[in-house]
Amino acid sequence: MNLTDKPVTTFLDELASDAPAPGGGSVAAISGALGAALISMVCNLTIGKKGYEEVQGDIQDLLAQSEELRAKLTNLVEEDVKAYTGYSVAAKKPRGSDEEKAERAKAMQSALKNATDVPLSIAETAVKVMDLCMPAAEKGNKWAVSDAGVAVLMAEAALRSAALNVLINLGSLKDQEFVADRRARLESLLEGKGAMRDEIYDYVVSKL
Amino acid sequence: MNLTDKPVTTFLDELASDAPAPGGGSVAAISGALGAALISMVCNLTIGKKGYEEVQGDIQDLLAQSEELRAKLTNLVEEDVKAYTGYSVAAKKPRGSDEEKAERAKAMQSALKNATDVPLSIAETAVKVMDLCMPAAEKGNKWAVSDAGVAVLMAEAALRSAALNVLINLGSLKDQEFVADRRARLESLLEGKGAMRDEIYDYVVSKL
Repeated sequence: MNLTDKPVTTFLDELASDAPAPGGGSVAAISGALGAALISMVCNLTIGKKGYEEVQGDIQDLLAQSEELRAKLTNLVEEDVKAYTGYSVAAKKPRGSDEEKAERAKAMQSALKNATDVPLSIAETAVKVMDLCMPAAEKGNKWAVSDAGVAVLMAEAALRSAALNVLINLGSLKDQEFVADRRARLESLLEGKGAMRDEIYDYVVSKL
Repeated sequence: MNLTDKPVTTFLDELASDAPAPGGGSVAAISGALGAALISMVCNLTIGKKGYEEVQGDIQDLLAQSEELRAKLTNLVEEDVKAYTGYSVAAKKPRGSDEEKAERAKAMQSALKNATDVPLSIAETAVKVMDLCMPAAEKGNKWAVSDAGVAVLMAEAALRSAALNVLINLGSLKDQEFVADRRARLESLLEGKGAMRDEIYDYVVSKL
Protein backbone atom coordinates (compact mmCIF):
# COMPACT_ATOMS: atom_id res chain seq x y z
CA MET A 1 0.00 0.00 0.00
CA ASN A 2 1.31 3.43 -0.94
CA LEU A 3 2.14 5.68 2.00
CA THR A 4 -0.06 8.46 0.64
CA ASP A 5 -3.07 6.07 0.47
CA LYS A 6 -2.91 5.78 4.28
CA PRO A 7 -4.81 8.13 6.60
CA VAL A 8 -3.02 11.38 7.52
CA THR A 9 -2.84 10.24 11.18
CA THR A 10 -1.24 6.90 10.17
CA PHE A 11 1.30 8.76 8.03
CA LEU A 12 2.14 10.93 11.07
CA ASP A 13 2.38 7.84 13.33
CA GLU A 14 4.77 6.08 10.91
CA LEU A 15 6.81 9.27 10.59
CA ALA A 16 7.11 9.62 14.39
CA SER A 17 8.13 5.96 14.86
CA ASP A 18 11.70 4.63 15.07
CA ALA A 19 11.52 3.39 11.46
CA PRO A 20 13.98 5.57 9.51
CA ALA A 21 11.54 5.80 6.54
CA PRO A 22 9.36 7.74 5.99
CA GLY A 23 11.52 10.64 7.15
CA GLY A 24 12.46 14.17 6.21
CA GLY A 25 12.62 13.42 2.47
CA SER A 26 9.00 12.27 2.35
CA VAL A 27 7.98 15.29 4.44
CA ALA A 28 9.71 17.56 1.90
CA ALA A 29 7.63 16.00 -0.90
CA ILE A 30 4.37 16.22 1.12
CA SER A 31 5.09 19.86 1.92
CA GLY A 32 5.54 20.61 -1.79
CA ALA A 33 2.33 18.71 -2.61
CA LEU A 34 0.43 20.77 0.01
CA GLY A 35 1.75 23.96 -1.63
CA ALA A 36 0.73 22.78 -5.11
CA ALA A 37 -2.75 21.77 -3.83
CA LEU A 38 -3.22 25.26 -2.35
CA ILE A 39 -2.38 26.87 -5.72
CA SER A 40 -4.99 24.56 -7.31
CA MET A 41 -7.50 25.67 -4.65
CA VAL A 42 -6.85 29.37 -5.40
CA CYS A 43 -7.37 28.61 -9.12
CA ASN A 44 -10.55 26.57 -8.49
CA LEU A 45 -11.96 29.45 -6.38
CA THR A 46 -11.27 31.85 -9.29
CA ILE A 47 -12.56 29.86 -12.28
CA GLY A 48 -15.97 31.13 -13.43
CA LYS A 49 -16.07 33.87 -10.76
CA LYS A 50 -17.45 37.34 -11.51
CA GLY A 51 -14.77 40.01 -11.67
CA TYR A 52 -12.11 37.56 -12.84
CA GLU A 53 -13.19 37.25 -16.49
CA GLU A 54 -9.90 38.57 -17.87
CA VAL A 55 -7.65 36.12 -16.03
CA GLN A 56 -9.57 32.89 -16.78
CA GLY A 57 -7.03 31.70 -19.37
CA ASP A 58 -4.04 32.41 -17.11
CA ILE A 59 -5.75 30.71 -14.17
CA GLN A 60 -6.54 27.60 -16.26
CA ASP A 61 -2.83 27.44 -17.20
CA LEU A 62 -1.76 27.82 -13.56
CA LEU A 63 -4.17 25.05 -12.52
CA ALA A 64 -2.86 22.64 -15.14
CA GLN A 65 0.68 23.27 -13.89
CA SER A 66 -0.14 23.03 -10.17
CA GLU A 67 -2.05 19.76 -10.66
CA GLU A 68 0.86 18.25 -12.61
CA LEU A 69 3.32 19.30 -9.89
CA ARG A 70 1.02 17.97 -7.14
CA ALA A 71 0.88 14.54 -8.84
CA LYS A 72 4.66 14.54 -9.26
CA LEU A 73 5.32 15.47 -5.62
CA THR A 74 2.81 12.90 -4.33
CA ASN A 75 4.68 10.26 -6.32
CA LEU A 76 8.03 11.51 -4.94
CA VAL A 77 6.82 10.71 -1.39
CA GLU A 78 6.81 7.04 -2.41
CA GLU A 79 10.05 7.35 -4.41
CA ASP A 80 11.85 8.69 -1.34
CA VAL A 81 10.78 5.69 0.77
CA LYS A 82 11.83 3.31 -2.06
CA ALA A 83 15.22 5.02 -2.29
CA TYR A 84 15.77 4.51 1.44
CA THR A 85 14.71 0.86 1.14
CA GLY A 86 17.16 0.40 -1.73
CA TYR A 87 20.01 1.70 0.40
CA SER A 88 18.94 -0.46 3.32
CA VAL A 89 18.91 -3.61 1.12
CA ALA A 90 22.42 -2.78 -0.22
CA ALA A 91 23.77 -2.25 3.32
CA LYS A 92 22.55 -5.75 4.31
CA LYS A 93 24.46 -7.51 1.52
CA PRO A 94 27.01 -10.12 2.71
CA ARG A 95 30.50 -8.86 3.55
CA GLY A 96 32.45 -12.06 4.18
CA SER A 97 35.01 -12.11 1.35
CA ASP A 98 36.86 -9.14 -0.15
CA GLU A 99 34.81 -9.67 -3.32
CA GLU A 100 31.55 -9.49 -1.33
CA LYS A 101 32.77 -6.38 0.49
CA ALA A 102 33.57 -4.67 -2.82
CA GLU A 103 30.21 -5.64 -4.29
CA ARG A 104 28.35 -4.37 -1.22
CA ALA A 105 30.27 -1.05 -1.28
CA LYS A 106 29.45 -0.64 -4.98
CA ALA A 107 25.73 -1.38 -4.39
CA MET A 108 25.64 1.08 -1.48
CA GLN A 109 27.22 3.87 -3.55
CA SER A 110 24.74 3.24 -6.35
CA ALA A 111 21.79 3.31 -3.89
CA LEU A 112 23.14 6.52 -2.33
CA LYS A 113 23.20 8.19 -5.74
CA ASN A 114 19.51 7.36 -6.18
CA ALA A 115 18.80 8.54 -2.59
CA THR A 116 20.43 11.86 -3.60
CA ASP A 117 18.62 12.28 -6.91
CA VAL A 118 15.14 11.73 -5.42
CA PRO A 119 15.34 14.73 -3.03
CA LEU A 120 17.02 16.72 -5.82
CA SER A 121 13.89 16.06 -7.92
CA ILE A 122 11.76 17.16 -4.96
CA ALA A 123 13.79 20.39 -4.76
CA GLU A 124 13.40 21.04 -8.51
CA THR A 125 9.65 20.43 -8.37
CA ALA A 126 9.25 22.60 -5.25
CA VAL A 127 10.91 25.51 -7.10
CA LYS A 128 8.36 25.07 -9.91
CA VAL A 129 5.56 25.34 -7.30
CA MET A 130 7.18 28.53 -5.93
CA ASP A 131 7.10 30.00 -9.45
CA LEU A 132 3.27 29.69 -9.48
CA CYS A 133 2.68 31.49 -6.17
CA MET A 134 3.07 35.16 -7.17
CA PRO A 135 0.85 34.79 -10.28
CA ALA A 136 -1.76 33.01 -8.11
CA ALA A 137 -1.58 35.75 -5.44
CA GLU A 138 -1.83 38.54 -8.02
CA LYS A 139 -4.47 37.09 -10.36
CA GLY A 140 -6.46 34.69 -8.16
CA ASN A 141 -9.57 35.27 -6.04
CA LYS A 142 -8.64 37.96 -3.52
CA TRP A 143 -10.44 36.04 -0.73
CA ALA A 144 -7.91 33.24 -1.20
CA VAL A 145 -4.76 35.40 -1.30
CA SER A 146 -3.62 34.05 2.10
CA ASP A 147 -3.74 30.53 0.61
CA ALA A 148 -1.26 31.60 -2.10
CA GLY A 149 0.93 32.89 0.74
CA VAL A 150 0.73 29.58 2.60
CA ALA A 151 1.58 27.82 -0.69
CA VAL A 152 4.90 29.65 -1.03
CA LEU A 153 5.78 28.92 2.62
CA MET A 154 5.14 25.20 2.10
CA ALA A 155 6.99 25.08 -1.24
CA GLU A 156 10.06 26.88 0.12
CA ALA A 157 10.10 24.62 3.20
CA ALA A 158 9.92 21.67 0.76
CA LEU A 159 12.91 23.02 -1.19
CA ARG A 160 15.07 23.53 1.91
CA SER A 161 14.01 20.21 3.44
CA ALA A 162 14.92 18.42 0.21
CA ALA A 163 18.26 20.26 0.22
CA LEU A 164 19.13 18.82 3.65
CA ASN A 165 18.36 15.35 2.31
CA VAL A 166 20.57 15.87 -0.74
CA LEU A 167 23.43 17.17 1.43
CA ILE A 168 23.32 14.30 3.97
CA ASN A 169 23.79 11.79 1.12
CA LEU A 170 26.47 13.76 -0.75
CA GLY A 171 28.62 13.48 2.40
CA SER A 172 28.84 9.68 2.00
CA LEU A 173 29.42 9.56 -1.77
CA LYS A 174 32.84 8.79 -3.23
CA ASP A 175 32.26 9.81 -6.89
CA GLN A 176 33.50 13.40 -6.65
CA GLU A 177 32.31 14.32 -10.15
CA PHE A 178 28.75 13.30 -9.20
CA VAL A 179 29.04 15.16 -5.87
CA ALA A 180 30.25 18.39 -7.53
CA ASP A 181 27.52 18.21 -10.19
CA ARG A 182 24.67 17.64 -7.71
CA ARG A 183 26.01 20.26 -5.28
CA ALA A 184 26.12 22.85 -8.09
CA ARG A 185 22.57 21.98 -9.20
CA LEU A 186 21.31 22.26 -5.61
CA GLU A 187 23.00 25.63 -5.04
CA SER A 188 21.46 26.98 -8.22
CA LEU A 189 18.00 25.81 -7.06
CA LEU A 190 18.40 27.42 -3.62
CA GLU A 191 19.74 30.75 -4.89
CA GLY A 192 17.43 33.67 -4.18
CA LYS A 193 14.56 31.50 -2.96
CA GLY A 194 14.60 32.85 0.63
CA ALA A 195 14.19 36.37 -0.81
CA MET A 196 11.46 35.12 -3.17
CA ARG A 197 9.54 33.63 -0.22
CA ASP A 198 9.81 36.93 1.71
CA GLU A 199 8.72 38.97 -1.31
CA ILE A 200 5.56 36.89 -1.89
CA TYR A 201 4.77 36.73 1.86
CA ASP A 202 5.07 40.53 2.15
CA TYR A 203 2.90 41.01 -0.96
CA VAL A 204 0.21 38.74 0.55
CA VAL A 205 0.35 40.55 3.93
CA SER A 206 -0.08 43.88 2.08
CA LYS A 207 -3.34 42.53 0.58
CA LEU A 208 -4.88 41.28 3.87
CA MET B 1 -15.27 11.58 9.56
CA ASN B 2 -12.30 13.66 10.70
CA LEU B 3 -10.24 15.15 7.92
CA THR B 4 -7.05 13.59 9.33
CA ASP B 5 -8.64 10.12 9.26
CA LYS B 6 -8.83 10.37 5.47
CA PRO B 7 -6.02 9.19 3.18
CA VAL B 8 -3.26 11.74 2.47
CA THR B 9 -4.27 11.82 -1.22
CA THR B 10 -7.93 12.53 -0.30
CA PHE B 11 -6.82 15.34 2.01
CA LEU B 12 -4.80 16.81 -0.90
CA ASP B 13 -7.79 16.41 -3.29
CA GLU B 14 -10.15 18.20 -0.87
CA LEU B 15 -7.56 20.93 -0.34
CA ALA B 16 -7.14 21.47 -4.10
CA SER B 17 -10.93 21.61 -4.70
CA ASP B 18 -13.10 24.75 -4.83
CA ALA B 19 -14.35 24.11 -1.29
CA PRO B 20 -12.90 26.93 0.84
CA ALA B 21 -12.22 24.48 3.72
CA PRO B 22 -9.83 22.82 4.28
CA GLY B 23 -7.48 25.65 3.34
CA GLY B 24 -4.32 27.38 4.48
CA GLY B 25 -5.23 27.17 8.18
CA SER B 26 -5.47 23.38 8.11
CA VAL B 27 -2.22 23.21 6.13
CA ALA B 28 -0.52 25.31 8.82
CA ALA B 29 -1.64 22.80 11.48
CA ILE B 30 -0.57 19.79 9.35
CA SER B 31 2.82 21.39 8.76
CA GLY B 32 3.31 21.83 12.50
CA ALA B 33 2.21 18.23 13.12
CA LEU B 34 4.76 17.00 10.53
CA GLY B 35 7.47 18.98 12.36
CA ALA B 36 6.45 17.53 15.74
CA ALA B 37 6.36 13.98 14.30
CA LEU B 38 9.92 14.42 12.96
CA ILE B 39 11.14 15.47 16.43
CA SER B 40 9.49 12.31 17.81
CA MET B 41 11.26 10.28 15.12
CA VAL B 42 14.66 11.75 16.07
CA CYS B 43 13.92 10.89 19.72
CA ASN B 44 12.73 7.35 18.90
CA LEU B 45 15.93 6.77 16.87
CA THR B 46 17.99 7.88 19.92
CA ILE B 47 16.26 6.01 22.75
CA GLY B 48 18.27 2.96 23.83
CA LYS B 49 21.04 3.65 21.30
CA LYS B 50 24.72 3.10 22.17
CA GLY B 51 26.67 6.34 22.54
CA TYR B 52 23.60 8.29 23.68
CA GLU B 53 23.43 6.99 27.28
CA GLU B 54 23.87 10.43 28.86
CA VAL B 55 21.01 12.12 26.98
CA GLN B 56 18.32 9.45 27.50
CA GLY B 57 16.45 11.51 30.12
CA ASP B 58 16.51 14.67 28.01
CA ILE B 59 15.37 12.75 24.93
CA GLN B 60 12.48 11.14 26.84
CA ASP B 61 11.40 14.66 27.92
CA LEU B 62 11.64 15.95 24.33
CA LEU B 63 9.57 12.99 23.07
CA ALA B 64 6.82 13.57 25.63
CA GLN B 65 6.62 17.22 24.53
CA SER B 66 6.72 16.53 20.78
CA GLU B 67 4.00 13.87 21.04
CA GLU B 68 1.75 16.24 23.04
CA LEU B 69 2.28 18.99 20.45
CA ARG B 70 1.65 16.58 17.57
CA ALA B 71 -1.71 15.54 19.09
CA LYS B 72 -2.64 19.19 19.66
CA LEU B 73 -1.77 20.22 16.09
CA THR B 74 -3.60 17.23 14.59
CA ASN B 75 -6.69 18.33 16.52
CA LEU B 76 -6.23 21.94 15.33
CA VAL B 77 -6.58 20.73 11.69
CA GLU B 78 -10.19 19.80 12.55
CA GLU B 79 -10.74 22.92 14.67
CA ASP B 80 -9.77 25.12 11.74
CA VAL B 81 -12.35 23.47 9.46
CA LYS B 82 -15.01 23.79 12.22
CA ALA B 83 -14.17 27.48 12.65
CA TYR B 84 -14.67 28.06 8.92
CA THR B 85 -17.96 26.14 9.00
CA GLY B 86 -19.11 28.28 11.95
CA TYR B 87 -18.44 31.45 9.98
CA SER B 88 -20.19 30.04 6.92
CA VAL B 89 -23.32 29.17 8.98
CA ALA B 90 -23.40 32.68 10.49
CA ALA B 91 -23.08 34.29 7.04
CA LYS B 92 -26.13 32.31 5.84
CA LYS B 93 -28.42 33.62 8.62
CA PRO B 94 -31.51 35.54 7.39
CA ARG B 95 -31.12 39.24 6.73
CA GLY B 96 -34.67 40.40 6.06
CA SER B 97 -35.45 42.73 8.96
CA ASP B 98 -33.07 45.16 10.68
CA GLU B 99 -33.21 42.91 13.72
CA GLU B 100 -32.17 39.88 11.64
CA LYS B 101 -29.38 41.90 10.01
CA ALA B 102 -28.04 42.93 13.42
CA GLU B 103 -28.21 39.37 14.71
CA ARG B 104 -26.43 38.02 11.63
CA ALA B 105 -23.67 40.66 11.93
CA LYS B 106 -23.20 39.78 15.61
CA ALA B 107 -22.99 36.04 14.84
CA MET B 108 -20.48 36.67 12.04
CA GLN B 109 -18.24 38.78 14.29
CA SER B 110 -18.34 36.08 16.95
CA ALA B 111 -17.48 33.35 14.40
CA LEU B 112 -14.63 35.50 13.04
CA LYS B 113 -13.14 35.80 16.53
CA ASN B 114 -13.09 32.01 16.78
CA ALA B 115 -11.64 31.77 13.23
CA THR B 116 -8.85 34.10 14.45
CA ASP B 117 -8.12 32.28 17.69
CA VAL B 118 -7.75 28.85 16.06
CA PRO B 119 -4.80 29.87 13.82
CA LEU B 120 -3.38 31.85 16.75
CA SER B 121 -3.34 28.56 18.71
CA ILE B 122 -1.66 26.89 15.72
CA ALA B 123 0.99 29.65 15.76
CA GLU B 124 1.58 29.26 19.52
CA THR B 125 1.90 25.47 19.20
CA ALA B 126 4.21 25.74 16.18
CA VAL B 127 6.57 27.97 18.22
CA LYS B 128 6.66 25.26 20.91
CA VAL B 129 7.69 22.73 18.22
CA MET B 130 10.44 25.13 17.06
CA ASP B 131 11.77 25.24 20.64
CA LEU B 132 12.39 21.46 20.52
CA CYS B 133 14.39 21.47 17.28
CA MET B 134 17.81 22.69 18.46
CA PRO B 135 17.89 20.30 21.47
CA ALA B 136 16.86 17.44 19.13
CA ALA B 137 19.57 18.39 16.60
CA GLU B 138 22.25 18.70 19.30
CA LYS B 139 21.41 15.69 21.47
CA GLY B 140 19.63 13.29 19.08
CA ASN B 141 21.02 10.50 16.89
CA LYS B 142 23.50 12.14 14.53
CA TRP B 143 22.19 10.09 11.60
CA ALA B 144 18.83 11.84 12.03
CA VAL B 145 20.16 15.40 12.33
CA SER B 146 18.70 16.36 8.91
CA ASP B 147 15.25 15.33 10.23
CA ALA B 148 15.59 17.85 13.09
CA GLY B 149 16.42 20.42 10.38
CA VAL B 150 13.32 19.53 8.35
CA ALA B 151 11.30 19.77 11.60
CA VAL B 152 12.27 23.42 12.14
CA LEU B 153 11.48 24.26 8.49
CA MET B 154 8.00 22.73 8.82
CA ALA B 155 7.32 24.33 12.22
CA GLU B 156 8.37 27.81 11.05
CA ALA B 157 6.27 27.45 7.86
CA ALA B 158 3.38 26.45 10.16
CA LEU B 159 3.89 29.59 12.27
CA ARG B 160 3.99 31.95 9.29
CA SER B 161 1.07 30.19 7.57
CA ALA B 162 -1.00 30.49 10.74
CA ALA B 163 -0.02 34.19 10.94
CA LEU B 164 -1.51 34.84 7.48
CA ASN B 165 -4.75 33.20 8.62
CA VAL B 166 -4.87 35.33 11.79
CA LEU B 167 -4.23 38.52 9.78
CA ILE B 168 -6.88 37.84 7.11
CA ASN B 169 -9.55 37.56 9.86
CA LEU B 170 -8.34 40.55 11.90
CA GLY B 171 -9.02 42.73 8.84
CA SER B 172 -12.78 42.00 9.06
CA LEU B 173 -13.17 42.36 12.85
CA LYS B 174 -14.80 45.44 14.41
CA ASP B 175 -13.81 44.92 18.09
CA GLN B 176 -10.61 47.00 18.06
CA GLU B 177 -9.55 45.90 21.55
CA PHE B 178 -9.67 42.26 20.42
CA VAL B 179 -7.80 43.14 17.19
CA ALA B 180 -5.02 44.99 19.04
CA ASP B 181 -4.63 42.18 21.58
CA ARG B 182 -4.40 39.39 18.98
CA ARG B 183 -2.10 41.43 16.72
CA ALA B 184 0.28 42.03 19.64
CA ARG B 185 0.26 38.33 20.58
CA LEU B 186 0.97 37.35 16.97
CA GLU B 187 3.84 39.83 16.62
CA SER B 188 5.40 38.49 19.80
CA LEU B 189 5.15 34.91 18.45
CA LEU B 190 6.74 35.85 15.11
CA GLU B 191 9.60 37.88 16.58
CA GLY B 192 13.02 36.36 15.93
CA LYS B 193 11.64 33.12 14.49
CA GLY B 194 13.08 33.66 10.99
CA ALA B 195 16.54 34.03 12.56
CA MET B 196 15.90 30.98 14.76
CA ARG B 197 15.04 28.89 11.68
CA ASP B 198 18.23 30.04 9.92
CA GLU B 199 20.36 29.32 12.98
CA ILE B 200 19.08 25.75 13.36
CA TYR B 201 19.26 25.11 9.57
CA ASP B 202 22.89 26.33 9.48
CA TYR B 203 23.76 24.19 12.52
CA VAL B 204 22.26 21.11 10.81
CA VAL B 205 24.11 21.83 7.54
CA SER B 206 27.38 22.12 9.52
CA LYS B 207 26.79 18.57 10.82
CA LEU B 208 26.08 16.93 7.42
